[in-house]
Amino acid sequence: MNNTIVAKLISMEDILAAGCFDVSDTIQIIEDALVAYKNGKVLLPDKISQVFDTKTQNRINCMPATLLDERVCGVKWVSVFPGNPVQYSCPNVSGTIILSELEKGYPFAIMDGTFITAFRTACMGAIGTKYLAKNHCEVLGIIGSGEQAKMHLITIKTVHPEIKLCRVASRSIESEKRFVQQMQQRFPDMLFETCCSDYEMASSGADIIVTAVSCQAPLLKARTIKKGAHYCHVAGWEDELEVPLMADKIVCDQWEAVKHRTQTISQLYKLGRLKDADIYSDIVDIIDGTVPGRETDDEFTYFNSVGLAYIDVAVAYHFYKKVLSRGLGIDWKMKSSNFLEQ
Amino acid sequence: MNNTIVAKLISMEDILAAGCFDVSDTIQIIEDALVAYKNGKVLLPDKISQVFDTKTQNRINCMPATLLDERVCGVKWVSVFPGNPVQYSCPNVSGTIILSELEKGYPFAIMDGTFITAFRTACMGAIGTKYLAKNHCEVLGIIGSGEQAKMHLITIKTVHPEIKLCRVASRSIESEKRFVQQMQQRFPDMLFETCCSDYEMASSGADIIVTAVSCQAPLLKARTIKKGAHYCHVAGWEDELEVPLMADKIVCDQWEAVKHRTQTISQLYKLGRLKDADIYSDIVDIIDGTVPGRETDDEFTYFNSVGLAYIDVAVAYHFYKKVLSRGLGIDWKMKSSNFLEQ
Repeated sequence: MNNTIVAKLISMEDILAAGCFDVSDTIQIIEDALVAYKNGKVLLPDKISQVFDTKTQNRINCMPATLLDERVCGVKWVSVFPGNPVQYSCPNVSGTIILSELEKGYPFAIMDGTFITAFRTACMGAIGTKYLAKNHCEVLGIIGSGEQAKMHLITIKTVHPEIKLCRVASRSIESEKRFVQQMQQRFPDMLFETCCSDYEMASSGADIIVTAVSCQAPLLKARTIKKGAHYCHVAGWEDELEVPLMADKIVCDQWEAVKHRTQTISQLYKLGRLKDADIYSDIVDIIDGTVPGRETDDEFTYFNSVGLAYIDVAVAYHFYKKVLSRGLGIDWKMKSSNFLEQ
Repeated sequence: MNNTIVAKLISMEDILAAGCFDVSDTIQIIEDALVAYKNGKVLLPDKISQVFDTKTQNRINCMPATLLDERVCGVKWVSVFPGNPVQYSCPNVSGTIILSELEKGYPFAIMDGTFITAFRTACMGAIGTKYLAKNHCEVLGIIGSGEQAKMHLITIKTVHPEIKLCRVASRSIESEKRFVQQMQQRFPDMLFETCCSDYEMASSGADIIVTAVSCQAPLLKARTIKKGAHYCHVAGWEDELEVPLMADKIVCDQWEAVKHRTQTISQLYKLGRLKDADIYSDIVDIIDGTVPGRETDDEFTYFNSVGLAYIDVAVAYHFYKKVLSRGLGIDWKMKSSNFLEQ
């Protein structure tokens, strides 16, 4: 009897060292996973959310999924503690991913899931802009200046290299400045404008608008959105109810997963002001050509992703293979004997 | 900003080296956790089961739970691939446990969960015998001869040291012999009898009967059960429907968790032949004195546990502290930087 189980431990630094911070590559993996799900090649049980405090919204989500073709089953265990940055000067999100094979059912990788969470979210947002924003976008307006805001700039700029100007508005001017300082280094060809917490300034005139904030408040005003804009909604409730109501096309990563949650469009659904038929499509139906994406330069398009466990598993498994091919990661012998023979 | 997350890696060997294979100690932890749950100090979302093949019943279960007093949230990720021993000569169960604190939401321990799974199951079975078997039990009859069968002998013998004779019956005579050889060394004062696959011989005349098999078949026959016996049902469907129907008291780890599953009593519930009122109680109601356990020497008592995530988390957290106090386990730096500053 072979009683040994060895799993590869993969830290965030291993993932970065293996060159996984590659937007185009990861977008391809995500699009493939979306199509695989549509074709019935994915098991996706409901996400389990344990909320510890309704006021702080401190929570840990448990997100399992299975890629049937790859024969990989995984889970992301991810915490969101919104008060961390202010209270403890540490990030609000932490993630851990376990991947198991379907031959013996054994775990083969235990990975940091923090970078994967931030990166796959921003890549999904960028996929929205790929199919729904105008071909030529010059101005990106971002509400929020934290990690998700930066990540979205990075991924969207990869899909729309023609973007020239980025306006950023957040609660603190200091944080806007840090955003610009850091992103200017990465994109020396771009112009940046801080908005001094004037959220309307960030969205006015923008071709693409991103809201990446953790507060629950209607920061994005409908009247500031110009004709032909695309809006990437990242978190919970961060736009006026009028924003989705005025959209020509509302597209989700998966409407069935979004509708019972707390997003702006989920609220409208609960209020009866938005019906299933008002959702244009899931993004996969545009990716695979079932329905067209943007059709005219005047449309206002609205994209909402809620986060899907199988995307985490697909991205993690892809990164695992990259890390392995570079000889990175370390082996951890989880067990090597039979406990009854000790 | 502190971007470091370090988790303690705890292998099965660390757990054993820290002296965690201690039946009485672990039974106390489990009883405390059962009472804590009853008092509202535990969050227990539904278990998620992903079944990959209805024929083989290969599956991975995802079991999250939170201990509110301890401020620990954890998940057990556990696979059951029944064909492993025959097909790959390796165990059918593998488990991994992640524990997170509720201050920042970060993971602080990643542990092998294989031993914990087997051990807590057998300790729960032993708790059943503590409250429901007669005070004086001489004969233990076990159907099944694998790890769970051995584990149950070990835990039940700790609770009932007066047991003198153990009869064992399983599919293969070789396996019965290995069972006896290994267990005789551990309990030199006991007598053992192999039953040559005669299941009726194992249960006839036994004061305590255990079925620890992975097959789905009514191996335990009602007519073989003597007056005053206690039956510990470990797995799925392994006893005739008449067995629970003739029981004076049916007790569960948690009837609400059992009733919609595939156990014998769950089947009877679905058939309408067993109603909520036919369940005597959950074991915690006996532990805390709400209802009496065994009341006469003639009762036939039936105990069915399905496995509860918070028991895994409570046992894992207890073991974590023991491992830490011995200076065992190794630190794994999951991340140590901000990915945007790379």
